[in-house]
Amino acid sequence: MGAIVSTGGCTASFVSPQGLIATNHHCIYGSIQYNSTEDNNLLKNGFLAKSMDQELQATPGSRIYVTEEIVKVSADIVGGLGEKVTGIERFKTIDKNRKALVAECEYDKRYRCRVVSFHGGMEYFLFKQLMLRDIRMVYAPATSIGKYGGDIDNWMWPRHTGDFGFYRAYVDKDGLPADYSEDNVPYKPKHFLKISASGLSADDYIMVLGYPGRTNRYRTSIEVKNNFTWTYPAAKAYREEYIDIIKANSAEGSDARIKYAGTLAGLANYAKNFGSMITSYNKGTTQQRKDQMEKDLASWVAELPTRTEKYANSLQGLNGLILQSQENKERDLVMSYMARTTMMSTALALYKLANESQKPDLERDQGYQQRDIARFEQRMKSINRRYDSDIDKAVLLHFIKHYTTIPQAQKIKSLDKFFALNNEIDNQADNEVDDSKLQKLLDSMYTNTKLDDEETRLQWMKKSLAKFEQSNDPFIQLAVAIYAEREAISDSSDALSGDIQAFRPKYMEALIAYYKSIGKAVYADANSTLRITYGNVKSYSPADGMLALPFTTLEGVAAKHTGEKPFNAPDKQMELIKQKHYGKYLSKSLGSVPVNYLGTLDITGGNSGSPTLNARAEFVGLAFDGVYESIIGDWDYDEQLNRAISVDSRYMLWVMEYIDGADNLIKEMEIIR
Amino acid sequence: MGAIVSTGGCTASFVSPQGLIATNHHCIYGSIQYNSTEDNNLLKNGFLAKSMDQELQATPGSRIYVTEEIVKVSADIVGGLGEKVTGIERFKTIDKNRKALVAECEYDKRYRCRVVSFHGGMEYFLFKQLMLRDIRMVYAPATSIGKYGGDIDNWMWPRHTGDFGFYRAYVDKDGLPADYSEDNVPYKPKHFLKISASGLSADDYIMVLGYPGRTNRYRTSIEVKNNFTWTYPAAKAYREEYIDIIKANSAEGSDARIKYAGTLAGLANYAKNFGSMITSYNKGTTQQRKDQMEKDLASWVAELPTRTEKYANSLQGLNGLILQSQENKERDLVMSYMARTTMMSTALALYKLANESQKPDLERDQGYQQRDIARFEQRMKSINRRYDSDIDKAVLLHFIKHYTTIPQAQKIKSLDKFFALNNEIDNQADNEVDDSKLQKLLDSMYTNTKLDDEETRLQWMKKSLAKFEQSNDPFIQLAVAIYAEREAISDSSDALSGDIQAFRPKYMEALIAYYKSIGKAVYADANSTLRITYGNVKSYSPADGMLALPFTTLEGVAAKHTGEKPFNAPDKQMELIKQKHYGKYLSKSLGSVPVNYLGTLDITGGNSGSPTLNARAEFVGLAFDGVYESIIGDWDYDEQLNRAISVDSRYMLWVMEYIDGADNLIKEMEIIR
Repeated sequence: MGAIVSTGGCTASFVSPQGLIATNHHCIYGSIQYNSTEDNNLLKNGFLAKSMDQELQATPGSRIYVTEEIVKVSADIVGGLGEKVTGIERFKTIDKNRKALVAECEYDKRYRCRVVSFHGGMEYFLFKQLMLRDIRMVYAPATSIGKYGGDIDNWMWPRHTGDFGFYRAYVDKDGLPADYSEDNVPYKPKHFLKISASGLSADDYIMVLGYPGRTNRYRTSIEVKNNFTWTYPAAKAYREEYIDIIKANSAEGSDARIKYAGTLAGLANYAKNFGSMITSYNKGTTQQRKDQMEKDLASWVAELPTRTEKYANSLQGLNGLILQSQENKERDLVMSYMARTTMMSTALALYKLANESQKPDLERDQGYQQRDIARFEQRMKSINRRYDSDIDKAVLLHFIKHYTTIPQAQKIKSLDKFFALNNEIDNQADNEVDDSKLQKLLDSMYTNTKLDDEETRLQWMKKSLAKFEQSNDPFIQLAVAIYAEREAISDSSDALSGDIQAFRPKYMEALIAYYKSIGKAVYADANSTLRITYGNVKSYSPADGMLALPFTTLEGVAAKHTGEKPFNAPDKQMELIKQKHYGKYLSKSLGSVPVNYLGTLDITGGNSGSPTLNARAEFVGLAFDGVYESIIGDWDYDEQLNRAISVDSRYMLWVMEYIDGADNLIKEMEIIR
Repeated sequence: MGAIVSTGGCTASFVSPQGLIATNHHCIYGSIQYNSTEDNNLLKNGFLAKSMDQELQATPGSRIYVTEEIVKVSADIVGGLGEKVTGIERFKTIDKNRKALVAECEYDKRYRCRVVSFHGGMEYFLFKQLMLRDIRMVYAPATSIGKYGGDIDNWMWPRHTGDFGFYRAYVDKDGLPADYSEDNVPYKPKHFLKISASGLSADDYIMVLGYPGRTNRYRTSIEVKNNFTWTYPAAKAYREEYIDIIKANSAEGSDARIKYAGTLAGLANYAKNFGSMITSYNKGTTQQRKDQMEKDLASWVAELPTRTEKYANSLQGLNGLILQSQENKERDLVMSYMARTTMMSTALALYKLANESQKPDLERDQGYQQRDIARFEQRMKSINRRYDSDIDKAVLLHFIKHYTTIPQAQKIKSLDKFFALNNEIDNQADNEVDDSKLQKLLDSMYTNTKLDDEETRLQWMKKSLAKFEQSNDPFIQLAVAIYAEREAISDSSDALSGDIQAFRPKYMEALIAYYKSIGKAVYADANSTLRITYGNVKSYSPADGMLALPFTTLEGVAAKHTGEKPFNAPDKQMELIKQKHYGKYLSKSLGSVPVNYLGTLDITGGNSGSPTLNARAEFVGLAFDGVYESIIGDWDYDEQLNRAISVDSRYMLWVMEYIDGADNLIKEMEIIR
């Protein structure tokens, strides 16, 4: 487990004594993109450092987190809280206790610490992670291998994606975490994984270690219903519109399109993800089983007076609060998409930083504490590599128009006033005219803002509240105008969260007791902490009359090849496949080199980049995706249909050795043949 | 083999001593449609005669052909032909010899006879078939079972189509073929098939007997290339346009749409068929292997002077003629689609009949001989059930516009003149105006023609040439105007056919000799004669990483169900599946009732409705389709990918017993349990 690390969003693992790190291509995509230009498009061509001095800096703010300590801290977080405290008190106390523990833990600046709740707040643990700050790009195959099949094949089987790449972590000469410096040396991990070149067969035991982000297996019936019948459908539509706007405002291959490659990939990924979940939900019995379970739980609680006394209020109380939290769902969703646009989010963050900086560090909101400033600064620095004003403006315009259609009671008055939306609400017939007014206002805002300049943004990080209030930058003015109202919304949301924090642990306690009574185990929902899942390489039936076989092969890469993205395998690869040049990586049973395989592993987002290990704990590939039918697994796990997809270590080595000539890396790793 | 019969287009089989006939739902679709009205839509509801007196007449002209005799007649057909005869002489001699043999054979009016060529004319056989003329509809499940999955699932796996239905053949009291009469009695076949209710397992031996229509496995390289790169793409586009026009001119569920259901199904079926073949051709190596084979054949011929003398000219000569036959391909294709429209084709056929009637019977063109008159009359009678003037007009307009774009050298002058197309050719900019002129002309033609009246059409069958020439019916005028030029085209095509008839047998002789030298058998191309193909129930891999399993089950029907056509399983079926009501037809290994299965059988169009038999020659289902990857099998057979799809006899019985209550039929058949 010591070799398994986190990038913050993905999992990764040490695969050499020299700090070499394997993870998914899509996990280092941002860094490849960051180092790409129209003249030297690393996304297209791939990148290989033949020696350490050729390695490139990863995208600013890149980190590798090595978990060193895990401590149970429930008493420190909620020990002093009585039953009677108000929601906002509860929220603030928990928040403050968390921050105090984190601050204490991070007193040693080399560490990054997190307090994580389990079972909706029944238990809390402190995770202490060494934070490596000098991360470099070592190797990525061409996107036509690393993202072969693109969005079309995403979440799909049969799959032929070479979703892998390598980073290296550096430390200072004393072996301590440090910012980038030419004098830094490779980090020497305590443990690293050996790479299997002999690979797996069908039904072999495998396990995956990683940092799965979040599952929702114990949500209540009304939460499930709202998510699948409202939130996911609405968010899917928003994402698809977002994609359309980006594409309509940037030519294929243009600088603007390259800048938005990562944004597009993320939007498409989750649009498809949501689509799958909606389909599975509508076809399946998730809701019926959830409803039934709650009925059964209620009956079980009602059986004994002691149980009734202990648990009866928890489900009812929790559901009441959840309904309350959904009251402004239209507003919350559309605001979250507006706040994805770059200029608006930058201005909001900068003004919030100025406000939070007035408070003692422990009372500041997460993301605005002293410990967050370096990352905040990196964010301000990397904006221009992912920003195009025409696209940003078109997206903001689009979502403002959506905003005008939400229920009147949910409207944000200061926002209406700023964009002069008030008067037009009742005469929708004038829409065309309104659009052009709004368009003019946005044109002017984007023309006059200076926030598209890096230096300007960095200066704003240090400015006083007064400077903000006097600013003539239109986006700063927007942030100032709507700040108070947004904060009020945030406060009432915090109070509600505090109330939920009182009820959810009780509900989970009831559920665990009930499940125990019927002999069923309750695994805690994923929460980005280090987990293990194990299973087997295994086929599954995606439809009556069809079987998804456990392995794909090189021949499948060639069969999908059209020459057009995303099915544009490199010429060299096509030639090698034609020649049946399997080299050292032939699987005799398949008669070819395996490319991807299926496994009965319970993974989710955050597991991306996780090493897949065989029974001897050797590296046999990287988990990078699940099949379409397994996406709803975050809410409702089905052994028959849940399959994780890994890229086979044999394919990785085949690409490295025969296509990209990455002999230096193969030599550096310990290969078990 | 005595139980295997033909409907003219499909295969069928006797399944009871009382003349009960099983075939595909899509083979009796025309009869279901013929008996359907908006008020009593049998297509939608299905049909079951609970007793013989409830049976309905099949669509007029329906026949069942029982093969009684097969005789080799090569000498009679080509025995007297020297090497030196001209193409047109050869064509006419062969044609005349055929007709003479057929006439002699059909002297006994109960029989229908055909002379069929094998190996492109190397051999000829005479097939003598008893022709049963009183055919009645006994049972068809609802289209939502019989055509479940519709065009979407057509040619696809996994498949869940209940593609079966029953006819019954009647004869007069003496047991002789007769036209419909209330006094007729069921035909007593010499042989009938027993029905297996225990069914098949994976890998079981199976065979299919039937009348496969046509394969093209021995076409030359340039024929293959022209077909896949020109004819199929063009015909696919035409068919898709045709479908669009029908749909644009008839509301879903309207009388007009019901009338065109069969036309739509036929158009869609082959549009998809062509699409698959184009895809397989482009992905595969059909052309390369064909080219290579011809090179190898040429080398083999060149090896010895005797071979050179015997065969050298054949390939070259054949290819020259084939190129010649492609010179007017644009004209030939578009004219064939124009001539699919009802009013134009009716007028052309009637005027041709008047002309052919002037000649001695044996010199008339096929379709216009005395033996064809009854069928011709039936065709004239059934037109109105499949005709809508708005649709017909729109289709004709569309293809006339296509016609205007063919190369000038291919134009038909009399057609140009009739539709006043000449003047507009050079000023395409005026297209809108031309369209409206043409539109007005067609409006007037469709308003004034009387050919949409059955009685009028039947009268025209008996009228003199002079009456045609004096007619003021605009479609008769069209037919008269273009007749001479169409006949000239037909004559020159016949002459070319005659030349090809000289060369193709020589080419096949060379090919067979060459194949023999390398130990390869040559199976004659299919030609609608009774054939057997055998193999096994077997899975296949449609793509790397995927396996198509040999059976589908009831659960797959439910999984595909959306409630919307073509996935609208009947409520009763959905309910039975939900209850897992498998009854007597459970397959223990599948845990359900099998619906369709895959087999390694070499079938093609015409095999539709063929019984699939087990090793004991018991009926285990009906072949009804092939998988997508096997469609190119007509040109290039691939053992790995070629799979026939059959509907399982257990599913047929399950539907009959539990959904439609067809107990009378189950009792009538001999069921092996």
